[in-house]
Amino acid sequence: MTQIPLGRGAEFDLIRRFYPVDRSAGAVVHQPATVRVGAGDDCAVVRGEGIALSVDISVEGVHFQREWLQPEEIGYRAAAAALSDLAAVAATPIGVLVSLAIDESDLDLAPRIMDGVRAAAAGARAVLLGGDMSRISGSMVVDVVVVGNALHPVLRRGARPGDSLWVTGELGAAAAAVRAWQAGGTPEAAARLAFALPTPRIAEAIWLVTRGAVDALIDISDGLAGDVEHLAAASGVRIIVDAASVPIHPTVHAHTSNHDLDLRLALTGGEDYELCFAAPPGAVERIADAFVDTFDVPLTCVGTIHAGAGVMLRANGSVTEMPYSAHDHFRAS
Amino acid sequence: MTQIPLGRGAEFDLIRRFYPVDRSAGAVVHQPATVRVGAGDDCAVVRGEGIALSVDISVEGVHFQREWLQPEEIGYRAAAAALSDLAAVAATPIGVLVSLAIDESDLDLAPRIMDGVRAAAAGARAVLLGGDMSRISGSMVVDVVVVGNALHPVLRRGARPGDSLWVTGELGAAAAAVRAWQAGGTPEAAARLAFALPTPRIAEAIWLVTRGAVDALIDISDGLAGDVEHLAAASGVRIIVDAASVPIHPTVHAHTSNHDLDLRLALTGGEDYELCFAAPPGAVERIADAFVDTFDVPLTCVGTIHAGAGVMLRANGSVTEMPYSAHDHFRAS
Repeated sequence: MTQIPLGRGAEFDLIRRFYPVDRSAGAVVHQPATVRVGAGDDCAVVRGEGIALSVDISVEGVHFQREWLQPEEIGYRAAAAALSDLAAVAATPIGVLVSLAIDESDLDLAPRIMDGVRAAAAGARAVLLGGDMSRISGSMVVDVVVVGNALHPVLRRGARPGDSLWVTGELGAAAAAVRAWQAGGTPEAAARLAFALPTPRIAEAIWLVTRGAVDALIDISDGLAGDVEHLAAASGVRIIVDAASVPIHPTVHAHTSNHDLDLRLALTGGEDYELCFAAPPGAVERIADAFVDTFDVPLTCVGTIHAGAGVMLRANGSVTEMPYSAHDHFRAS
Repeated sequence: MTQIPLGRGAEFDLIRRFYPVDRSAGAVVHQPATVRVGAGDDCAVVRGEGIALSVDISVEGVHFQREWLQPEEIGYRAAAAALSDLAAVAATPIGVLVSLAIDESDLDLAPRIMDGVRAAAAGARAVLLGGDMSRISGSMVVDVVVVGNALHPVLRRGARPGDSLWVTGELGAAAAAVRAWQAGGTPEAAARLAFALPTPRIAEAIWLVTRGAVDALIDISDGLAGDVEHLAAASGVRIIVDAASVPIHPTVHAHTSNHDLDLRLALTGGEDYELCFAAPPGAVERIADAFVDTFDVPLTCVGTIHAGAGVMLRANGSVTEMPYSAHDHFRAS
């Protein structure tokens, strides 16, 4: 590995620059023995016993507007997004730490935000382990650290030609809510719920991994199109996504009257926090019914893995380069 | 333990509210077996093997002004402050994760900030394990997560009556630099260095602990007066600080012409990142020369531990309640 394998985008270009490849200190290629998985996956993993670590920042005005959410939802959503990174390596949550930066005049919101963090953590059987707090002028910041056990972490880099590509759940609902708010409207209840109180697929990930159904795994935080790019880059494969198979959340249709836009929201909207994984041939088909019985969450095959590189989209009978990329939290939306 | 034992102050009052005592989920009093040390100390510690975790947020306009520092120093300082929390439990660093929120127009600063983070991490033999990034409107935020090995973490709660209170290094230099900048002046080089590139006392902490010299340990991040309050609260003891013994950094005198102000800066300035610890009777005296020979850092006895509660100051022959408390990053300075 000579560079962190991520997809395209200004944010990821910048992140690659943070991890120089030819310095002995801090370089990805020179990890001490205590580091099993360094930068470039959903979590870092330290120690032989497998402690998974990740951090996920939520910034007012970028990831959410305070008018959209209750304070508890701001905290819940920030923690759920971070916990989803544990799901993305099939780790069992232990705890969270939270850094909160908030304007002095909003101090009364802090305990409510933290109530939401604790609720999300409790839902994942994690505890609040600590954190830090500061005042800030302007945008509120909730930065959530997650720590979990990952004895056998499942990374982005295991996809092989011949595998198929699967997603849990339905996509685009959170993006539909954002779209409604940004247009000055009110999202449908289902769309609002998907944005405000997302469910990290932790139990689902562990269930699938323990049944041998997962060669490579990522969570859908930046949109399916962008996250599949990371999978392709990390695994050194080409991935073809089948447009007609993408499970678009029904609420998306209620927010648009245009199927192309529905598809775009489902592929690029981000904040779905569903799982996307590459599975060995036939592996998911054998267990799909049991999965749906257990979790009441759909499992959908959305593509195929091939030799090569990059991400393609099969639509209307032809295969072209994926026209969409990651939802970029670094640029104005 | 019915409440997180912290000292006085609005920030700590708020933090106590984040950890309700009578709920089963997330409560400090109901920790799962994987959590050895929860909230309320310098780091959380998970797993029997002892993984120490902490997070430390640096906010522009609160912890620093960008005019004071080079971008590399912003990153170095943020990481050193976080690494100091590992020193404060005598943990050996493994790695850091960094969340960076930065205005789009400052994007070019991001790699330089991260160069500083990596330099501080390398100095502590830690690697950059990951992180997150977002744009933000307004204040820059650098939030640093640290992870280390802490097989035998030394906490805030071990101080006993009869112990003596010690600090490493000299105090007040970083506060003197801030004072000079805030007055529109330029700090002395030594003061600027103390603020911009603090040295976490990691090797020093492990050295002292392995020689049985430490019953309770904290790093001085909020100022000696405030941090000693945390030690007293966590250990359930009274601590008397001897004003005449406090090692005031020589650069402090160059910034003020008033000994009372010097003492106040040394007791309340914060950002020293020296160690403060309670030692069994005679323990430090036996090893002090070897410590100074090894690290070229002073070790000073600054007080005594007694039965009771709270922090007192011995000055001019009388003992009164400590007139100073923690440097509060939650209020305007």
